[in-house]
Amino acid sequence: MLKSIDPALNADVLYALRAMGHGDDVVLADMNFPADAIARETTLGRLLRMENIDSGRAARAVLSVLPLDSFVKKPAERMEVVGKPKEILPVHKEVQKEIDAAEGRPSPMGSIERFAFYERAKKAYCVIQTGELRGYGCFVFKKGVIIAPAG
Amino acid sequence: MLKSIDPALNADVLYALRAMGHGDDVVLADMNFPADAIARETTLGRLLRMENIDSGRAARAVLSVLPLDSFVKKPAERMEVVGKPKEILPVHKEVQKEIDAAEGRPSPMGSIERFAFYERAKKAYCVIQTGELRGYGCFVFKKGVIIAPAG
Repeated sequence: MLKSIDPALNADVLYALRAMGHGDDVVLADMNFPADAIARETTLGRLLRMENIDSGRAARAVLSVLPLDSFVKKPAERMEVVGKPKEILPVHKEVQKEIDAAEGRPSPMGSIERFAFYERAKKAYCVIQTGELRGYGCFVFKKGVIIAPAG
Repeated sequence: MLKSIDPALNADVLYALRAMGHGDDVVLADMNFPADAIARETTLGRLLRMENIDSGRAARAVLSVLPLDSFVKKPAERMEVVGKPKEILPVHKEVQKEIDAAEGRPSPMGSIERFAFYERAKKAYCVIQTGELRGYGCFVFKKGVIIAPAG
């Protein structure tokens, strides 16, 4: 374990989040997502895991170190429920709460249709499969920047 | 996910438990154990993980599919507290409870001194690092057999 680092961020996940740059996407996928197949098409090329925790807990850990991109309107997006794109499930609310807490203000997620989400995920830097057992626990976060104060 | 399989048993762990044979050892290690270094000396040669769950939860998942060896007196053993080999910590009690439940009867664990445990672990089939944050959450289980009834 490491000082001040959430133990849910394993060595592989921490490596990937650190290696990502401005505008790179990280996908948080649920347990039924075709995560291995899609991860092989990403930049990292292999699947990462944060097992046995739900989407909200995983988002909290990731957002404890990852800045969201302030250059775009919706740096966080969710997969839409098939046939009900506007339906907000508890898993979406839980992750929204973590995003708002990390940003220090309401920062509503965007949404992406299921198959469009797959295509977007293939272009991500990496895919992290969480232990989320509920459906539609699939999210994409765009990495932002941490700029040193002018000296 | 798979029918009737505990979701805490990820694909890599399930592969290893299935591949093990009679008398092979699997180590469940806590978060501070030198798991990566020791796992590289095991038969499998690489570390497995069951993250974000404690020793008891991980033992329950493993023992839901892994038979313990009935050919030896103590098929399950724990790492001893340094300087206090007989001290039983809550993490030990929690795993003992899972062993007893899986066996359907009291089946007290044996114990191994810390450095002897490291040597024993190097000879295991594999090491699984759990999300156990407490100390001394280190165990070794010896695989038993499942014999078809005489036809």
